[in-house]
Amino acid sequence: MSLPQLSRYLPILDWGRRYDRAAFTGDAVAAVIVTIMLIPQSLAYALLAGLPPEAGIYASIAPILLYALFGTSRALAVGPVAVVSLMTATAVGGVAESGTAGYMAAALTLALLSGAMLLALGLFRLGFLANFLSHPVIAGFITASGILIAASQLHHILGIEGEGDTLPEIVAGLWAHIGETNPVTLALGVAATAFLYWVRGGLKPLLRRLGLGPRMADLGARTGPVVAIVATTLAVWGFDLGARGVAIVGEVPQSLPPLTLPSLSPALISELAVPALLISIIGFVESISVAQTLAARTRQRIDPDQELIGLGAANIGAAMTGGFPVTGGFSRSVVNYDAGAETPAAGAFTALGLALAALYLTPLIHFLPKATLAATIIVAVLSLVDLSILRRAWAFSRTDFAAVSVTILLTLLAGVEIGVMAGALTSILVHLYKTSRPHMAVVGRVPGTEHFRNVLRHDVETQPHVLSLRVDESLYFPNARFLEDRLAAFVAEKPELTDVVLMFPAVNEIDLSALESLEAINARLREAGIRLHLSEVKGPVMDRLKRCKLLEELTGEVFLSQHEAVCRLAEGRPSRPG
Amino acid sequence: MSLPQLSRYLPILDWGRRYDRAAFTGDAVAAVIVTIMLIPQSLAYALLAGLPPEAGIYASIAPILLYALFGTSRALAVGPVAVVSLMTATAVGGVAESGTAGYMAAALTLALLSGAMLLALGLFRLGFLANFLSHPVIAGFITASGILIAASQLHHILGIEGEGDTLPEIVAGLWAHIGETNPVTLALGVAATAFLYWVRGGLKPLLRRLGLGPRMADLGARTGPVVAIVATTLAVWGFDLGARGVAIVGEVPQSLPPLTLPSLSPALISELAVPALLISIIGFVESISVAQTLAARTRQRIDPDQELIGLGAANIGAAMTGGFPVTGGFSRSVVNYDAGAETPAAGAFTALGLALAALYLTPLIHFLPKATLAATIIVAVLSLVDLSILRRAWAFSRTDFAAVSVTILLTLLAGVEIGVMAGALTSILVHLYKTSRPHMAVVGRVPGTEHFRNVLRHDVETQPHVLSLRVDESLYFPNARFLEDRLAAFVAEKPELTDVVLMFPAVNEIDLSALESLEAINARLREAGIRLHLSEVKGPVMDRLKRCKLLEELTGEVFLSQHEAVCRLAEGRPSRPG
Repeated sequence: MSLPQLSRYLPILDWGRRYDRAAFTGDAVAAVIVTIMLIPQSLAYALLAGLPPEAGIYASIAPILLYALFGTSRALAVGPVAVVSLMTATAVGGVAESGTAGYMAAALTLALLSGAMLLALGLFRLGFLANFLSHPVIAGFITASGILIAASQLHHILGIEGEGDTLPEIVAGLWAHIGETNPVTLALGVAATAFLYWVRGGLKPLLRRLGLGPRMADLGARTGPVVAIVATTLAVWGFDLGARGVAIVGEVPQSLPPLTLPSLSPALISELAVPALLISIIGFVESISVAQTLAARTRQRIDPDQELIGLGAANIGAAMTGGFPVTGGFSRSVVNYDAGAETPAAGAFTALGLALAALYLTPLIHFLPKATLAATIIVAVLSLVDLSILRRAWAFSRTDFAAVSVTILLTLLAGVEIGVMAGALTSILVHLYKTSRPHMAVVGRVPGTEHFRNVLRHDVETQPHVLSLRVDESLYFPNARFLEDRLAAFVAEKPELTDVVLMFPAVNEIDLSALESLEAINARLREAGIRLHLSEVKGPVMDRLKRCKLLEELTGEVFLSQHEAVCRLAEGRPSRPG
Repeated sequence: MSLPQLSRYLPILDWGRRYDRAAFTGDAVAAVIVTIMLIPQSLAYALLAGLPPEAGIYASIAPILLYALFGTSRALAVGPVAVVSLMTATAVGGVAESGTAGYMAAALTLALLSGAMLLALGLFRLGFLANFLSHPVIAGFITASGILIAASQLHHILGIEGEGDTLPEIVAGLWAHIGETNPVTLALGVAATAFLYWVRGGLKPLLRRLGLGPRMADLGARTGPVVAIVATTLAVWGFDLGARGVAIVGEVPQSLPPLTLPSLSPALISELAVPALLISIIGFVESISVAQTLAARTRQRIDPDQELIGLGAANIGAAMTGGFPVTGGFSRSVVNYDAGAETPAAGAFTALGLALAALYLTPLIHFLPKATLAATIIVAVLSLVDLSILRRAWAFSRTDFAAVSVTILLTLLAGVEIGVMAGALTSILVHLYKTSRPHMAVVGRVPGTEHFRNVLRHDVETQPHVLSLRVDESLYFPNARFLEDRLAAFVAEKPELTDVVLMFPAVNEIDLSALESLEAINARLREAGIRLHLSEVKGPVMDRLKRCKLLEELTGEVFLSQHEAVCRLAEGRPSRPG
C-alpha cells in the first residue's frame, strides 16, 4: 500500500508531516479552551447517562485521541454529547439498574457494539444507511430529545427522586415526589440555571462592553459553566450544604482512565444491538453534519466512510477505557474551530488536558452539587429544542409534517428508541409511497412542431388509436406495478386503441422488476390486440433491455424519437423491426 | 351514494344487471369444470396446511361467493393455494400442534387477521405496500416455496412421519424415519405421482390424437387428479390397504361449512400478526398478477384497491366458515377463464358445486390415501419451481441477483417467513442504496451550441472558476446527503472555484430534507467564498422553493437556462437578483 493510499485510512500521515510551530500554537490555545469547556460537560453528560462523573472524563480522553488518528475532520471534538447520553441511559437502563456494576459494564458493551457497528459501516461503505433518517425526522428527534433531557434533569434541581424514559413517566415521577423537594437544592439549582441562561444571552454583550474583542468575548462566555461549578462547589463546601440534603458528586477516583474489557455476553449483546445501531446512526448523522459545516469554511474534504471509521475507533476506545458512547459534539467543535484549532493535534492536546484533570482536579469536585450539572444540561439542551421545524414542515409538505410530528410525539411519549425508529419508518414509507407513483403524462404533439407535451396542460394533437405515455422517472420495483395499473386502466377505457407508445426520455435506469412489468404489459396488450412501442430510450437503459427477451417479443418497435413514432403510426400498421 | 359510485365497491351491481342466458351457460360450464378440478386441490392444500381435508372444501365455498360480490376480476377463482397453505402451516405450526383443536382455531384467526389486513389495505388504499416485494424476490420466493412444499410432502409418499419448516429440518426428519418406509404407500404414491406427471405432459396430446379439440383436450387433461383420486381410493377400499398401513383421509364430516367464530385472544393475535401480514401481501401479489393477466384478454379493468377488499372479504369468509387463508389461484383461474366463465357468477356456481360435494361426496373419500393428495401437491408445485430466475437476474444485474439468491437461500434454510422478509429487506436496501447515489454529471458547453453535456463523455468547453453540475434525479432524503458530499469533494479539489451552478432539468420533486441540504450547501459554499446558482428549475420545484428561505438566502441567482447562467458568469460577477 502506497503512502497516499495508507493516508486515506490514517489521515494523520498526511497532516502530521506538515505540522509546524504555527499549527502547534493554534492547536494548543484551542485545546486549553475546549478542555475548560469539556470538563463540566463531560461530568454532566455522565450524570445524564446514569454513570459516575469520572466516566464522562474518561469518555473524553481515548476517544479524542483515536478520532485524531482516524478521523478526517480537523476541528471535530469527540466526546459525550447530550442526545447520545440520553439514548445510552435509555438503552442501558433497560438491562441494568443505574448505579450498579452491571450498569457500568453494559455502558461499555454498548460503546463497543456501537464502535464495531460504525467501523463495519465504514469498512463496508454503508454510510448511506444514515440516509434512512430524513432531515425533518432528525430535527424532530433532536427537538423531542432536548425536551426529554431537560425534563429528566428537573428532579436534580428539585433534589428529589426521579426516573423514566418517556415524558409521561418523568412527569409522573416528579409529581409523586414533588412534596419531598429540598429547598436548598432548589435554590442552588434555580440560581445556577438562571446564571447559565444569562451567560448564554447576556455575558457576551457584557464582555464586549468591557472592551473584549468579539472572539474573546465569545470564548469568555463559554467559561460560564466553569464559573457556576466553582461557585456552587465553594458554596456547598463553605456552608456544609451536603448536611442540608444537597446531593453532591462525592468521591471521584483520582486516576487516568482504567483499561476495561466490555462484557461480550450474547444475551447482553442481543439486548443492546438495536439501541447500539440507533446510537451509531444518530451519532454519525450529528457528527457528520458538524464536520461538513466546519470543513466547508476551510475547503477541506470530509470522507463520510472514513468518518465512520474514526467514530468507530473512538467508541471502541471509550469501551476499553471506562467510558460510554461518544460522537462529535456541535458546540465544542465550533469552539475548537473558533479558538484556532488547525489540526487533529488540538484534540490530542485536549485529551492531555482532560487526563491532567482526571489526575489532579477530581478531588476538587467532591462537593460539586448535582443540581449544577443538571442546570448545565438543561441550559445546553434547550438550544436543541426548535419546534419551528413543525411550522416549516407544515408549510413545505404534509408528508414531511407527518414524519416530523410522528417522530416528536413518539419520542416524547414512547421514548427515544421507538421515536427514532418510527420516524425512520415513516420517512421510508412516505418515500416508497411517492416513488411507487411515478409521474407520467399522456402526451400529444404541439401543432406544427416535433415537441410532445402533456395533453392536460397544452393544446396538442393526438390520434385516437395511439396512446403516448411519457414516463418521467426511472422504472424500478416500487413503481413498476403502477405502470401496469395505469396502462390497464387506459386499455379498459379506450376500446379504439391499437398502439401504445411508452416514451422513456427520463428513464435513467430500469431494474428486473420493471423489465418483467414491461414484459407483462407487452403480453397483456398483445392479448388485447394492441401493439407496444418504446421511444427515446436512453443508451444505458437500451443496454439493459438488450440483455433479455423483451426486445425480441415486443409487438411494436423501438423508435429513436417520439416524432418518428407518431409519424410511422399515423401511416398505418408499422413494419416489425429487424 | 349514486349507483355508479356504489358499484365501484360492489361490482356485482354492474355486471348483475346485464346478466343473460349466454353468460349463464358459459358460467355454468366453467363452474362444473373448476369444481372437478378444485375438489382434489382443496383436499390437498388442506393437508399441506396441516388441517383436516374438509377445511379445504369449506375454504373454497364462502370465499368464492364473497369474492364474487366484491372482487373486480371476472375470472379469478379464489380458494386455498399452495404457497399460502405452506405459509399457513408454518405460521399456525408456530403456535399449536397440528391435529389439535387449537391448531384449527389458530388457522381461523390467521384467516381473519389476513382478511382484516387486506380489507384495511384496500380501504386505506395502501395496495402500494405490495411493491415492497420486487418481481425477482417474488419469483425466488415462489420457487423456493415450491421446493419446500414438494419436500414437505415426501413423507406422505413414503408413509412415514415428517415435519419441519425448513429444508434442513425436513431432510433430517425424512432421514430419521426413512427405515420405517411403508412399501404399499410408497408404491401407491410413486404410481400416483408418475401418473399425474404424465397427465401434465402426455395426456393432452393423447386426447388430441383421440380426436378431441384443443380446448376439450386441455380441459380433459385437468381431470387427471380426479382420476388418480378415484383409482387410488378404489384400490385402498378394494384391497383393504388401510390394514397394510396406508394412511387414509378417514372420516370427513358430511355437512355444509359450519359457522365458526375465530378466537380474538390478544396473545394469539400478536403471535400471528406478522405471518398474517406476509400471507396477505404474498396472496395479494399472486392474485393481482393472475387477475391482471386474465383481464387484459378482455380489456377489463382490475382495481387493485378493490381487489384487496375482495380478497379481504374472502378471507374473513374463510375465517367464519371453518376455512383457512385463501387467495386467487393461478391454474384454476386460467381453467375458469378457458372454460368460458363470463362473470363472477361462475364462482358462485363453483361454490354451489363444492357445497354439494361437501354434503354428498365426503363419505366417498374416506379411503382416499394421503399419498395421492401428496402426489397432487408435488406435481402441482413443481411447475412453480423455476430456477432460471437466477440466471436471468445474474445476466440483468448483480443487485437483482443478490436479492433473488438471498430470498431463495433463506426461504429454504430458514423458512418462508424469514425468507420473504429478508427478500423484501434486501430489495429495499438495494433500492435505497441506488437512490442514495443519484446520477449527476459535471457538464460543459458543446462548442458553438447552447447544449450542455457530460464532460466525461463529450468534448465540451468549461470555465475553471465555474462548476456546472447536472442532477439527473429528483432530490429527496435518501440522496440529499450525497449531493452535499459530492459538492464538498469538488470544492476541496478546486481552489480556483468561485461559482457552482446546479442544473435541475430532471429534478421532478424536492422534499424538505433536500431543501435543507441545499440550504446547508449554500451556507457552506458561502463560507468558502463560492456562490451557488440554480438553473433550469421546473415549475413545481420552483413552487416548493418559494415556500422557504433558500431563494432569499441564495448567494447566487436562479437562471432560466444553463446557457444564460454560463454567459452571465463568464461576464464576471453576476448581480444579485431582485
